[in-house]
Amino acid sequence: MIIVLKCGSTAEDLTRVEKRVTDLGYRPHPIVGVERTIVGAVGREDKTPLHDLEAMECVEAVIPILRPYKLVSREFKPETSVLDIAGIPVGGPALAIMAGPCSVESHEQILAAAEAAQRGGAQFLRGGAFKPRTSPYAFQGLREEGLELLAEARATTGLKVVTEVVSVKDVPLLVEYADVLQIGARNCQNYALLSAVGESQKPVLFKRGMATTIKEYLQAAEYLLDKGNFNVILCERGIRTFETATRNTLDLNAVPVLKRETHLPVIVDPSHGTGVAALVPAMARAAIACGADGLMIEIHPNPGAALSDGPQSLKPDEFEELIAGVRPVAQAVGRTV
Amino acid sequence: MIIVLKCGSTAEDLTRVEKRVTDLGYRPHPIVGVERTIVGAVGREDKTPLHDLEAMECVEAVIPILRPYKLVSREFKPETSVLDIAGIPVGGPALAIMAGPCSVESHEQILAAAEAAQRGGAQFLRGGAFKPRTSPYAFQGLREEGLELLAEARATTGLKVVTEVVSVKDVPLLVEYADVLQIGARNCQNYALLSAVGESQKPVLFKRGMATTIKEYLQAAEYLLDKGNFNVILCERGIRTFETATRNTLDLNAVPVLKRETHLPVIVDPSHGTGVAALVPAMARAAIACGADGLMIEIHPNPGAALSDGPQSLKPDEFEELIAGVRPVAQAVGRTV
Amino acid sequence: MIIVLKCGSTAEDLTRVEKRVTDLGYRPHPIVGVERTIVGAVGREDKTPLHDLEAMECVEAVIPILRPYKLVSREFKPETSVLDIAGIPVGGPALAIMAGPCSVESHEQILAAAEAAQRGGAQFLRGGAFKPRTSPYAFQGLREEGLELLAEARATTGLKVVTEVVSVKDVPLLVEYADVLQIGARNCQNYALLSAVGESQKPVLFKRGMATTIKEYLQAAEYLLDKGNFNVILCERGIRTFETATRNTLDLNAVPVLKRETHLPVIVDPSHGTGVAALVPAMARAAIACGADGLMIEIHPNPGAALSDGPQSLKPDEFEELIAGVRPVAQAVGRTV
Amino acid sequence: MIIVLKCGSTAEDLTRVEKRVTDLGYRPHPIVGVERTIVGAVGREDKTPLHDLEAMECVEAVIPILRPYKLVSREFKPETSVLDIAGIPVGGPALAIMAGPCSVESHEQILAAAEAAQRGGAQFLRGGAFKPRTSPYAFQGLREEGLELLAEARATTGLKVVTEVVSVKDVPLLVEYADVLQIGARNCQNYALLSAVGESQKPVLFKRGMATTIKEYLQAAEYLLDKGNFNVILCERGIRTFETATRNTLDLNAVPVLKRETHLPVIVDPSHGTGVAALVPAMARAAIACGADGLMIEIHPNPGAALSDGPQSLKPDEFEELIAGVRPVAQAVGRTV
Repeated sequence: MIIVLKCGSTAEDLTRVEKRVTDLGYRPHPIVGVERTIVGAVGREDKTPLHDLEAMECVEAVIPILRPYKLVSREFKPETSVLDIAGIPVGGPALAIMAGPCSVESHEQILAAAEAAQRGGAQFLRGGAFKPRTSPYAFQGLREEGLELLAEARATTGLKVVTEVVSVKDVPLLVEYADVLQIGARNCQNYALLSAVGESQKPVLFKRGMATTIKEYLQAAEYLLDKGNFNVILCERGIRTFETATRNTLDLNAVPVLKRETHLPVIVDPSHGTGVAALVPAMARAAIACGADGLMIEIHPNPGAALSDGPQSLKPDEFEELIAGVRPVAQAVGRTV
Repeated sequence: MIIVLKCGSTAEDLTRVEKRVTDLGYRPHPIVGVERTIVGAVGREDKTPLHDLEAMECVEAVIPILRPYKLVSREFKPETSVLDIAGIPVGGPALAIMAGPCSVESHEQILAAAEAAQRGGAQFLRGGAFKPRTSPYAFQGLREEGLELLAEARATTGLKVVTEVVSVKDVPLLVEYADVLQIGARNCQNYALLSAVGESQKPVLFKRGMATTIKEYLQAAEYLLDKGNFNVILCERGIRTFETATRNTLDLNAVPVLKRETHLPVIVDPSHGTGVAALVPAMARAAIACGADGLMIEIHPNPGAALSDGPQSLKPDEFEELIAGVRPVAQAVGRTV
Repeated sequence: MIIVLKCGSTAEDLTRVEKRVTDLGYRPHPIVGVERTIVGAVGREDKTPLHDLEAMECVEAVIPILRPYKLVSREFKPETSVLDIAGIPVGGPALAIMAGPCSVESHEQILAAAEAAQRGGAQFLRGGAFKPRTSPYAFQGLREEGLELLAEARATTGLKVVTEVVSVKDVPLLVEYADVLQIGARNCQNYALLSAVGESQKPVLFKRGMATTIKEYLQAAEYLLDKGNFNVILCERGIRTFETATRNTLDLNAVPVLKRETHLPVIVDPSHGTGVAALVPAMARAAIACGADGLMIEIHPNPGAALSDGPQSLKPDEFEELIAGVRPVAQAVGRTV
Repeated sequence: MIIVLKCGSTAEDLTRVEKRVTDLGYRPHPIVGVERTIVGAVGREDKTPLHDLEAMECVEAVIPILRPYKLVSREFKPETSVLDIAGIPVGGPALAIMAGPCSVESHEQILAAAEAAQRGGAQFLRGGAFKPRTSPYAFQGLREEGLELLAEARATTGLKVVTEVVSVKDVPLLVEYADVLQIGARNCQNYALLSAVGESQKPVLFKRGMATTIKEYLQAAEYLLDKGNFNVILCERGIRTFETATRNTLDLNAVPVLKRETHLPVIVDPSHGTGVAALVPAMARAAIACGADGLMIEIHPNPGAALSDGPQSLKPDEFEELIAGVRPVAQAVGRTV
């Protein structure tokens, strides 16, 4: 941690800062420059207590040097994690493909979607039974009935089920039905939910929030690993920017950044990331080309009649084409689908 | 709702769109322009089902005309709401002033803060017992012990207690201790929490999320009012932008926009909004000048020793100076403090 | 400047970095921490050469400590500058008020606007003769004819003329007609234009770019002062964010930040900042409350018929009301209008 | 264009709006809904005059339906443009590869860079002689001497020269030396420069601004085409967002969006887009996978000694590896390199 003293600070100020640093259990290293004096603080791993030196009169800034996360980082675990998610390896050479509708709507719809997902080559079926909707008047999901329909679809197709959890109180129910619990973008910094899902020890698909920096995202993931749950798949799904041509701005830069910073697998959701079905195949190829370990794609047997997210859903044959387009790109970067 | 057909769409396409609009229970009004055909859809209040026409092949865009919220809007209730929050009117000519530390840390700290808040003219004491922290390794709050310390401070000073709720399961406990439940920025779109807090019928201080548009913010507030809880105070606390000179970008434009759109009171939190104690007094004055109904200010008896948010906390005498600076501005716009 | 070495870097790496720092003319100060080694570099004022150490294999980051601007900063000139702009003091207790239409459209229009500006209490008439328009098919301004109309309006009312320069080749012409050259948001980092306007020694109204950080903005202003032109008025006019309820997000936080960082006067343009006439008076009051030295307001004798920016223009009587609302706020913060 | 009347507007208001629409030369089509009345305006191609109806008292919003650009759009020219840039086809199956240093620094440096570019498979040499630098105290380029060095490098290697123009007055000089004039991100909305470069009829590499929406970017490109200059290559190079892990957020979504909207070729600059050399190869592959027509890559014989942008420059052998990694991805999407 670097403490920067204000321009014009005195020798007394420096002594005061050094004393505070020492009191907190660190060793101060002052450097007196031409225009500024700074103090490096070393000696303990946890640097958080030093942040509050910023409130001292004579301190201009406190600049962190170390990463603020640990268990998720490659410094903690240098080799890439290949997770075993209900028997499917995620993070290895074979891409993880998750597909399905935004919401479970009916027996016919989810079965048709599951069959389309399977035909296209997916190993996971996604589908929401509990939906976090911007408006309280929008369709909120079939809830437990939806979970049963997902379980049926799993029984028929053998696909593993990924479904979203939006409340701590639903965790036990979802643990029973799902293979993977999804934490959605709006709950990325809902730490109560993160802790509860971490404790469940169930595999997690953890989406980045729309205004969450990569650093904050990894700190949030740390809440999951800190509970001993290392089966965490990260997912880039678009951030909020000024651009309105796409619903969100899918931030593919996050893929190579995350792959350098963390050992966890990273997949990409180009459906939410762009919000426009016609852009999904191109961005799916790009995701794999820059190193993503898999894809999450919204598909619907009849997007024009979907109860939610119709405009970004692919039809079954469009999904098969997407995978056909992804396959040679995957090979080009040494992966398989 | 306006449905825009793609360039080059046929008469058949138009018929198909008109049929779909009719099937959903609306009346279609086609307008054939020089370069584009559009269809206006009228006849029902709820326009959400029309959104999914965007998934039709021949449709380029579906453009909403109406506001997507109702109970919070001035169209629903034109007169400004003056809430009675534990006997304190909020939204009327007298400004609501909330002050206190980020976290409750100890008996001495919260009592000193409460006395400073009262001396400065606050009617409400803020203080977190349950803290949503970016890092799992940061101080997470004193929890129930913190709530008891807040209750003691209320008993001593008569100030009303505002404290944050971060989990559905804590709602019953907090309802017992607090006068106002705060929903923080990170939980602005945690709909499970919104519903639970709405149902509690307890007054709510509802903060805008860092990446929440004003439209989405009002839709989220609708979750609270939809449960019959109209005692909702809105709070602008800074949005996330590219600028790094401030911790967030306090968006004061939101104040007059919200005052036009909704009948609910709007207060401003310049402490989180800027993250820099030295900027707080100026932004507090600005907030009142553009129409805010109150302020939430972080104060700490000894900011340099705070366990969280020290750099943005004011000392007791700085808080008194802030209020002294706000007072003439309040008078200038016809308010009192 | 702080150079952070990568985790796992060797003693040899440290030697290599120290050598490079020494070669560039600085003195290296290594600090070996528990997890990282850093090197402070001191001894020369200009730290730019050190930035490129980031390209060294063993270096993780190079962190600047000093501000990257000089002539504009309060460290260079601690006392606030009160500029003499064609006989009008700007930056002192009396607020500078600039008003007028987006574009000069006709003799009648600019004269009516000038009279309204004067009646409302403005000392400066704004009006564009050369317009930077997003579309090449939009009205581009009356050019030299517009300048003549501005000069006539000055002769009639005594107001000083502020008008935008969009091209280096127009500088000599504009210098002849204008009292203040405006550099617009889109040209905030057009360094060729900044240098030419700096050299002209004409007073400058220099607007912040929509995606320019405050730090970059001050560096850009440095281009003007570096040519010996210290008659520079800064102007916050809204930044680009995800929010769409306003055309831009007027960033009033920039006002107290700039007042701390620089000695130059800072005014605010709430018309472009919000893009909505109904929001302008509230944000004008807020601007003054947080310390702005003046306002730039778009007015039009008949906004509904304006050739550009009608929706954000005030009518003459609305402008008078705005000033009447600003006056008590100005008094509340020790200013006059 | 759709004109939305305010809630509670009268029949008289509607008549007034219809009259205004008719006066401007359009035909009004009113639709009276349950809660709102709207008026569609048709009959003329140019819809800009209608925008100012927003300033009418009774009008809530004016919503555009048509795209605000023409010559650049696929509606104007449906087939993809394959440009002939000094004998090199750009936009066809063969990718355009541009490589070189940020700045021309010396004879040795530019020659070494040009040879590395050629060895890696580039057809174009990039290099700045006139540099737009954030700080006036940073290296501003070798100017005419730099152009001569670029011409020498062209003579030796046969590569075509792409170099940036930062001022209207430099256009004639640059036209003489360069094969392609680059307009940089900071000048994306410098309309005076766009017009001058458009008139020169020289091929243009036109970079997107950091805060320019895709719609505004295409309107800006329209300034070039409107002067009869259709030899325009678009270039995504990163936008400004809240994320700080990368210098900018390379917005690859812009590639498929642009390819749908415009017939012009689109290349990607992952060097400026990420600002981190280690991320460039992954993002280069992603760019090609989602449909880019080429790449612009910063390379330097010795990045650690570069006068500018060292941290994002690749070494010659890293560039060769990048191209080796891009080649199979290009083949996977039916392109060659």
